[in-house]
Amino acid sequence: MSEPLLDTTVRGFLDALASGTPTPGGGAVAALSAAMAAGLITMVCDLTIGRQQYAAFEAEARELRERAEALRAELQALAQEDVEVFNHLLAAYKLPRTTEADAASRRAAIQKVTRQATEVPLQVARAAVALLPLCAPLVRSGNRNAVSDVGVAVLLVRAAVPSALLNVETNLAALEDQLFVRQTRAQSEDLTIGLDDEVAGALALVRERIAR
Amino acid sequence: MSEPLLDTTVRGFLDALASGTPTPGGGAVAALSAAMAAGLITMVCDLTIGRQQYAAFEAEARELRERAEALRAELQALAQEDVEVFNHLLAAYKLPRTTEADAASRRAAIQKVTRQATEVPLQVARAAVALLPLCAPLVRSGNRNAVSDVGVAVLLVRAAVPSALLNVETNLAALEDQLFVRQTRAQSEDLTIGLDDEVAGALALVRERIAR
Repeated sequence: MSEPLLDTTVRGFLDALASGTPTPGGGAVAALSAAMAAGLITMVCDLTIGRQQYAAFEAEARELRERAEALRAELQALAQEDVEVFNHLLAAYKLPRTTEADAASRRAAIQKVTRQATEVPLQVARAAVALLPLCAPLVRSGNRNAVSDVGVAVLLVRAAVPSALLNVETNLAALEDQLFVRQTRAQSEDLTIGLDDEVAGALALVRERIAR
Repeated sequence: MSEPLLDTTVRGFLDALASGTPTPGGGAVAALSAAMAAGLITMVCDLTIGRQQYAAFEAEARELRERAEALRAELQALAQEDVEVFNHLLAAYKLPRTTEADAASRRAAIQKVTRQATEVPLQVARAAVALLPLCAPLVRSGNRNAVSDVGVAVLLVRAAVPSALLNVETNLAALEDQLFVRQTRAQSEDLTIGLDDEVAGALALVRERIAR
């Protein structure tokens, strides 16, 4: 796609996603899923801030809101970056390889951009993981009419992190620098430590507060 | 929000989501997450159809594509419907209740729209669940360069179904018709039977094919 992703309409984005061109693809979707989670967190903060009955939680809600908005801005930028890096990658694969020198510089270009194509989704996973600690306090003390929205945010984080990491893994498979591959894989694994438990804990809180 | 959701830019939608107005909220996000999953499935079908090496799978890929596109159209319409029903619900709560007759008709209006507000996300969950059987054959036999995109689709379905059902559950809590509540809850529970296993199976296939 040529138009910046964020300036496309929702319908246009979904149509471009469904089209036979490889961008936007799963990497951008992972970033946007996490951005939607951040947006929901901010919404619930806004439905909490300034209301008498949640006054004791107001300062914390303001802080949570600020962190969610910073992460949303980062994730939106990463969604765009994912599309761009992927387009660079497609361009690198199309470089000429008729002479040996051409083939060598094509190969170097592919390696360089593929490396970036692991760094962008890894950063998406990091930002998505950082959203999770914002959810539990909001479920406990935020606007009770919006508890299910925090639950949706948690479920989206649970989707976005492994989605981004699938994109990391796919691109690592094409890299020659095995030290970088091992380091990146270790960082990916570190990101998911404790994630399932944290998600399960937050979802249990959500279900409990909806039932009350 | 007043502008139709699908005609908003992606940035505008995320900003509206993050705003202190309750629409769009988690219900629309659940529908859009599943619509993104459908879009990714169609993309991978399109990256498979017409290619020599996947010729044996072509007829099936065309069928999967058709089903994914029908579900995407339904999910996009449901995203919009979720916003509208929720706006109707907010309007119903604002109806006058100064006289006894007013209060009675306000209460009836709230009950009627709340019922719709359970039906829309239940239909979102149904459509999202219907996407899952399209994924495994695509992972097995579709374009191998796009396996991670099918993985992202599976992860989004895993997020969209319980997200939609959280919205069902939240609205059921406000309903008086206990027969409808029990029936709807039973339908919700039926939808999730076997879901975790089907998701886990599809994700294992994805990881296996990426590693190969």
